[in-house]
Amino acid sequence: MKENKIVFIGAGNLATNLAEAFHDRHIKIAQIYSRTEDSAKTLAKAVEADYTTELESVINDADIYIVALKDDALVELMPQIIAGKENALMAHTSGSLPLNVWPDSVKRKGVFYPLQTFSKQRKVDFLNIPTFIESNNSADNQLLKELASCVTNNVSELSSEKRRQIHLAAVFACNFTNHMYALAEKLLQQYGMPFSYMLPLIEETERKAQVLSPKEAQTGPAVRYDEKIINKHLELLSNEPEMQEIYKLISKSIHKL
Amino acid sequence: MKENKIVFIGAGNLATNLAEAFHDRHIKIAQIYSRTEDSAKTLAKAVEADYTTELESVINDADIYIVALKDDALVELMPQIIAGKENALMAHTSGSLPLNVWPDSVKRKGVFYPLQTFSKQRKVDFLNIPTFIESNNSADNQLLKELASCVTNNVSELSSEKRRQIHLAAVFACNFTNHMYALAEKLLQQYGMPFSYMLPLIEETERKAQVLSPKEAQTGPAVRYDEKIINKHLELLSNEPEMQEIYKLISKSIHKL
Repeated sequence: MKENKIVFIGAGNLATNLAEAFHDRHIKIAQIYSRTEDSAKTLAKAVEADYTTELESVINDADIYIVALKDDALVELMPQIIAGKENALMAHTSGSLPLNVWPDSVKRKGVFYPLQTFSKQRKVDFLNIPTFIESNNSADNQLLKELASCVTNNVSELSSEKRRQIHLAAVFACNFTNHMYALAEKLLQQYGMPFSYMLPLIEETERKAQVLSPKEAQTGPAVRYDEKIINKHLELLSNEPEMQEIYKLISKSIHKL
Repeated sequence: MKENKIVFIGAGNLATNLAEAFHDRHIKIAQIYSRTEDSAKTLAKAVEADYTTELESVINDADIYIVALKDDALVELMPQIIAGKENALMAHTSGSLPLNVWPDSVKRKGVFYPLQTFSKQRKVDFLNIPTFIESNNSADNQLLKELASCVTNNVSELSSEKRRQIHLAAVFACNFTNHMYALAEKLLQQYGMPFSYMLPLIEETERKAQVLSPKEAQTGPAVRYDEKIINKHLELLSNEPEMQEIYKLISKSIHKL
C-alpha cells in the first residue's frame, strides 16, 4: 500500500482511530483536512502528515481520499470535496450512506466502513474490527480490501443495502445498549450508589453474547413475565415517566421475542 | 465457615453458581432442595451434598438456609420453608424482596444477594461479584459477611430499599442491554448476516463503560440528533412497529439525558 498517496478528509473519532491504525502499520498518510485547526493539527502530528483547514487546499494528486465526515457534512461539502479529484478513488466511511452518494462525475466510488464505536480518547485495536468495503469496479474493490487488510483480519465486501441494515443493528447493539448503562447509572445516583456496582454484571452480559445467542442468554423478570416484579419496578419509576415507558416497551418486547 | 451447616433451598441458575462457588472454597453444603429431581440431583452431586425434592424432608438442624427461589415461589412456599427452622438464619437471594418478607416467627432474617446474571451452563467467577447482605442483627450480619467473603472480595451491607433500586438498575444494565443485542441479531438475520459482526462493537461498548461514564461514552445518531439518519432508520423499521417504537423512545431519551 506504500505507493498509494492517501488523504483523510475529516479528523473526528473514526478518522483519528483509522489514520492512527494506518500509521501504526507504516502506511503513509499525505494530508489531513479538518474544519477545526485543533483537530487537523493534532491528528496530522500523530500520523506525521501535513494538514489543512481549507477544502480548496486539499491536494488533488492523491490516489485515495478517505472521507470520514458526518453524513450531513459529507453531502453538504460534496462539490468542494470532489472538485479536481474526479479520477481518484473517493471512499466514505458512513454506515448509512450508499455508494451512490458519490455523484456521476466521480469515476471511482468507494466505501470503507469499519464497524466500531470510536472515541478520540480511546485507541481501539483494529485487528478484529469487521470492515466492510464497496466500490464500483473490481480493481478498487481489490485496492480497498488490501488497504483494510493492513489493519484488520476481518474484511468483507458488502452492498449498500446490507450495510445500512448493519448500521441500524449497530445502533441497537451499541448506542442503545450504552444508554441502558446510562439509565442504570442514573437510577443508582438517585440513591447515592456508584455505577461500579454494575460493572461485573455488564461484563458478564457482554461475555455471554460472545458464546450464546442473546435470545437464549436472556434472564430477569421480563423473560419469565414475573408481573409482580415488573409492577414493583414500574412503581419505583413513577417519577420517571419516560423510563417507565421504556421499561414497559422493552419488557413487552423481551417477552414476545 | 466450615462449622456451619448450610442448606440450599432451590437449585436454579443462582443457587447452582453460588453453591458451586462455596464448594470450590471448601465450604460444606449439607443438603439441596429442589422441586425437580433432576435439578436437585445434579447440583447435589456437583457439590457433594444430599438432596430432597420434598420441603418436609429438608433437615431442620442446619445453621443457615440459603433460599434461592423465584420471588413468587418463595412467598407461596414460605410456611413450609420455615416450619421447624425458626431459630436458624434464613437468607433469601432476591434483589426485589425486602428483609421483612421473612415473617415474625423467623428470628434470624437475612438476605444474601449476589448481583450477577447467572446461567447454569456458564460458571461465573465470583471473585468480583458485588454481594449485598442484610440481616436483623449484627451477629448474623457478621456471619453473612464472612460467608460472602469466602467467595467474593466485594461484599457490602445494604438496605432493602437500596437493594431493590440496584435490582431495577440491573434490569436496565443487563436484561435490557441483552435485549438490544437480541434485536440487533433479529435485524441481521433478516438479511442473512451473522450476529458475530456485532461482537467487537459489543465488547468495546462494554469496555468503555469500565473507564468512561456511559453518558460521556455515547456515540451514534441519537446523541448528536442526526434527524436524517434517525428518519432513515425509522423507515427501515416500517415493518416492525414495536422496534420502531423502541427506537423512537430510546433515541429521545438519549438526546434528552
